[in-house]
Amino acid sequence: MLSILPKIKGPEDIRRLDSGELEVLAREIRYVIAQTVSKNGGHLGSNLGVVELTISLHLSFSSPKDIILWDVGHQVYAHKLLTGRFERFSSLRQRGGLSGYPDPSESPHDQFIAGHASTAISAALGMACARDLKKENHHVVAVVGDGSLTGGMSFEAMNHAGQKGSRLIIVLNDNGMFISQRVGALASYLNRIRTHPAYHKVKSDLEQMILRLPFVGENVSRTVERLKDSLKYLVVPGMFFEELGFRYFGPINGHDISSMTRTFEAAKHEKGPTLVHVVTQKGKGYPPAENDPSRFHGIGPFDLATGESHSGRHAPTYSQVFGEAMVKLGSMEPRLVAITAAMVEGTGLTEFSRRFPERFFDVGIAEQHAVTFAAGLASRGMRPVLAVYSTFLQRAYDQLVHDVALPGAGVVFALDRAGIVGEDGPTHQGAFDLSYLGHIPNMSIAVPADGYELCDMLYTAVLHRSSPTAIRYPKSRVPEGFEHGVPFKEIPWGKAVVLRDGTDLVIWAYGPMVQEALLAADELERYGIYATVVNGRFVKPLDEELLRDLRTKTDAFLVVEENVTSGGAASRILGFLHDSASAGADIPKVRCLGLPDRFIEHGKREEVLGDLGLDARGIVAAALKLLEPSPFGLQAAQMTP
Amino acid sequence: MLSILPKIKGPEDIRRLDSGELEVLAREIRYVIAQTVSKNGGHLGSNLGVVELTISLHLSFSSPKDIILWDVGHQVYAHKLLTGRFERFSSLRQRGGLSGYPDPSESPHDQFIAGHASTAISAALGMACARDLKKENHHVVAVVGDGSLTGGMSFEAMNHAGQKGSRLIIVLNDNGMFISQRVGALASYLNRIRTHPAYHKVKSDLEQMILRLPFVGENVSRTVERLKDSLKYLVVPGMFFEELGFRYFGPINGHDISSMTRTFEAAKHEKGPTLVHVVTQKGKGYPPAENDPSRFHGIGPFDLATGESHSGRHAPTYSQVFGEAMVKLGSMEPRLVAITAAMVEGTGLTEFSRRFPERFFDVGIAEQHAVTFAAGLASRGMRPVLAVYSTFLQRAYDQLVHDVALPGAGVVFALDRAGIVGEDGPTHQGAFDLSYLGHIPNMSIAVPADGYELCDMLYTAVLHRSSPTAIRYPKSRVPEGFEHGVPFKEIPWGKAVVLRDGTDLVIWAYGPMVQEALLAADELERYGIYATVVNGRFVKPLDEELLRDLRTKTDAFLVVEENVTSGGAASRILGFLHDSASAGADIPKVRCLGLPDRFIEHGKREEVLGDLGLDARGIVAAALKLLEPSPFGLQAAQMTP
Repeated sequence: MLSILPKIKGPEDIRRLDSGELEVLAREIRYVIAQTVSKNGGHLGSNLGVVELTISLHLSFSSPKDIILWDVGHQVYAHKLLTGRFERFSSLRQRGGLSGYPDPSESPHDQFIAGHASTAISAALGMACARDLKKENHHVVAVVGDGSLTGGMSFEAMNHAGQKGSRLIIVLNDNGMFISQRVGALASYLNRIRTHPAYHKVKSDLEQMILRLPFVGENVSRTVERLKDSLKYLVVPGMFFEELGFRYFGPINGHDISSMTRTFEAAKHEKGPTLVHVVTQKGKGYPPAENDPSRFHGIGPFDLATGESHSGRHAPTYSQVFGEAMVKLGSMEPRLVAITAAMVEGTGLTEFSRRFPERFFDVGIAEQHAVTFAAGLASRGMRPVLAVYSTFLQRAYDQLVHDVALPGAGVVFALDRAGIVGEDGPTHQGAFDLSYLGHIPNMSIAVPADGYELCDMLYTAVLHRSSPTAIRYPKSRVPEGFEHGVPFKEIPWGKAVVLRDGTDLVIWAYGPMVQEALLAADELERYGIYATVVNGRFVKPLDEELLRDLRTKTDAFLVVEENVTSGGAASRILGFLHDSASAGADIPKVRCLGLPDRFIEHGKREEVLGDLGLDARGIVAAALKLLEPSPFGLQAAQMTP
Repeated sequence: MLSILPKIKGPEDIRRLDSGELEVLAREIRYVIAQTVSKNGGHLGSNLGVVELTISLHLSFSSPKDIILWDVGHQVYAHKLLTGRFERFSSLRQRGGLSGYPDPSESPHDQFIAGHASTAISAALGMACARDLKKENHHVVAVVGDGSLTGGMSFEAMNHAGQKGSRLIIVLNDNGMFISQRVGALASYLNRIRTHPAYHKVKSDLEQMILRLPFVGENVSRTVERLKDSLKYLVVPGMFFEELGFRYFGPINGHDISSMTRTFEAAKHEKGPTLVHVVTQKGKGYPPAENDPSRFHGIGPFDLATGESHSGRHAPTYSQVFGEAMVKLGSMEPRLVAITAAMVEGTGLTEFSRRFPERFFDVGIAEQHAVTFAAGLASRGMRPVLAVYSTFLQRAYDQLVHDVALPGAGVVFALDRAGIVGEDGPTHQGAFDLSYLGHIPNMSIAVPADGYELCDMLYTAVLHRSSPTAIRYPKSRVPEGFEHGVPFKEIPWGKAVVLRDGTDLVIWAYGPMVQEALLAADELERYGIYATVVNGRFVKPLDEELLRDLRTKTDAFLVVEENVTSGGAASRILGFLHDSASAGADIPKVRCLGLPDRFIEHGKREEVLGDLGLDARGIVAAALKLLEPSPFGLQAAQMTP
């Protein structure tokens, strides 16, 4: 059925195709992407939108000699299909299969890892400067979405690039979210004259005419300069970029290959930084995705024929539970405001945004601003809740320290996607938040083990407290049995809960690991081992009273957390037990089961957790090992009567 | 001698002065600032530059009802003098005295803590949104330097503010570093007509004339719209800000009080966001600072009459040693490039920037971009060294994880101002870097204990390795005895050094604490206690071999680090010793001497360290406590024969 795509072993094969064949190729790429994503889940809309753009880039530039960088990186499926990865494509986002993002270990055509937004221009400028220092001559192209431009880092990089004047091409992939008002018939007309020699004639004519205006009086030279700039604005829609030192081309139809290749050729001849403004449609060619771009941005498996998601009777996700709780709290507390950095659907805030539009703020991909903006709101008595993914809050670590924790501002962070996220892989695994938050003074860190706890922690943080608080929860469903409409309860701050008593060891677990710990305790009983199981609930403040109490009953602690062990919950607990011990003999054994000191690859969440020993089986194994008499311990035991 | 300033108890007292008295007041403020900074050290140039601006703000706005936010915050000296803090002003930056930054605990006129750049617009927008939700009616003013505008966060905030259309005034305090080319006679002229009713007449005339141009043909309505925009550009120099949705006023002479108050009155009547562009001169009124603004930006005590710094024969600072080493390495290694985020002098890179201009990059206040830019350079074979302060690198934590550590890019971070910085206080104390770096996979963290180690670590990282590395050092002088020109030596990576042998305990110290540990060991001998002293050198990788070896000889470890104890070096060492113990009895006692879990106030570096027990005396006390038989331990000891 596929006639052309299977024969494409690399970009050079595309250059042999005529325009009719390129059209067929685009259709085949769309089909393969839609089919694969309908099975494996993934990013659909953005990938269907850049098929012709990707073909055009590989026609105009010689990858990998020329460098093509993809900002955010989730739109590289067509790029992967065209650079020798067609045969492995069905393994997309599966354990051991192709990554859903650029991955230099997969192909020399993937030249920089990208999973977070707004990094490509910085990386591209670094590569362009390296090229110039090494007296090389290739092109560097950064493909950046309009959303990514709202990230301050993009601005920092453009500001630097414009000043340096380095040769560099930014392709602005505009699918209409940020600067769509710039798109129009006049702009398109202007682009045609701009990339055409006749433009210069028109410009010169206009210049003469405007210079005849009576306004030109005293201070002639400065005025003329100003007028020239003005003229530029008159005929160029991308003045904003020109002001930053970029030569602007566009806007161009991002589904018209010949128009794009023509413009890229023009851009290649520029000596400084250029920006090519390309307009694409998300979901292009697959009507369900064209009509509902938000749902098809990142999506799980669905029915290709209808576009319907596979459903069933499932417990809601933590994000959904959070979203519902926010709506309820919104009615109860008029000071509550919700903030998101371009993740309205993902974080579950859609309904809140409809019900309370005045108290809802989507700041764009701008986590730094989001945090300090929240601190500003809190300083004037509002109760801001910022819903953000664990790895994206990494962007605002300094703002957390400087603008929230230092003044003790009552900002609540609803930290979604904490722990293993699964298919999105190393750039998205929420592996570090307990560590990057734990050492910040004044922070509270709560970890719900089910839907009710999430609701109650949120309620308590918003209505009964006013201090910096993070509530971290995973990309998964809450445990079965969650019922909507249960009234909120205030939760005792900094207190853990003993779920089961036993004398041989304490399993102190957080979040989804609590359920696994309970299963493990059942299993351990079959070995004659009786475990106390604790739902830790708070990483900070720690329930020191309970820890002290438990230490008198057992000398073995197993802490289970979905976070790197370095600087996480176990490290805090070990530190406390150790510091509060009155003598060497009083120090219990503490073992941590958490994420290792390396980046974690993609795969299904359950598979990845299983591989890492973060499930009931792994907890049983770790408990047995912890209690195993060591050679030294055994000797000591044998010596006593 | 001072006739007016001592009588100013609050902003309301300024409003009673006539213009002649205001001039006297400005002179008196300048005198007091210069005199105090010459004794206590501090920020001189920026404070002398904003004297008239501060007076004008307090004349036009009613603080604290109207909110005035100072971005970066180091330019608030005049503000403090005018808001009831004249009498305490001689205590500026001293332990227990006035902070050098806005501090809400000092005065209701200080409404937001600021020590890092580019946060004010975000905070101001948050406050403006809170005001609107609460149906209040005051003004919110953010005073932002031109340098701070290069920080992406400022752009994120302006992008959001422009879209929201909230009423908000940004005062751009332009002292000529970023956008000076916009300043000129025409621009000043245009500002006069813009804030004057006649402007509208001129505008209308121009509009008529331009509409008569033959270019206006087909698609008339769009063209007219475009032309109107163009016209705006013709008469408004601040088009960049207008494109972001701000109404622009300026530029205005920032030393002309009546011109500023007139413009602020106009801005107060706008319904949306406005930007008032004020041009000031750094160091204004004190010739030595006018002539050398860089040296007088942040300065230690100096002679007020001559402007000469108090000097003497001192060892160089770590920053100076770093700068010299970079120049030597620049000659040895052509791939070496140096990057700074607007801290050329502070980080010691001035000489490198002169000698190797092509390989030197100052990216502006843009740490996020700096890190990913460095990763881009490294990915193409260059050897980037990014010199940055410990707390400013907090801005780029995500880029460190995502763009440097994940791909394993060979970027070297020269992490200056790590540990206690002293007078700059809580926003600048480098208290967290060992914790925010330690849990990132693939990172190396080295801590030199003297100038030679800094040189050798840098040399080894740049010439013999190529992986993510941080070398952290304090704001202080290297130990006496450092000599220039000693050849570089490769340093064994991840290896600590035993400096002194003893059997009672191990003192494992980092950086400046190594010297203190040696002094403490001398003192402990007088108590009959013999300590092994280790220069830890690396926090990651840890010297596990040495730790294992030492554990067989002693069961008490005291770790001394200038970092919060949570997630720092001691926590890593405790984790290792604990995990590798073969039985409970084999677990040594580990105590950590580090920074507490709270923000640390300002004061002299030595004073603050002494208060925290981070000196020889504190180490002795901690060692005695560690070795003290505890009640439980004593009992156990008494029970054995």
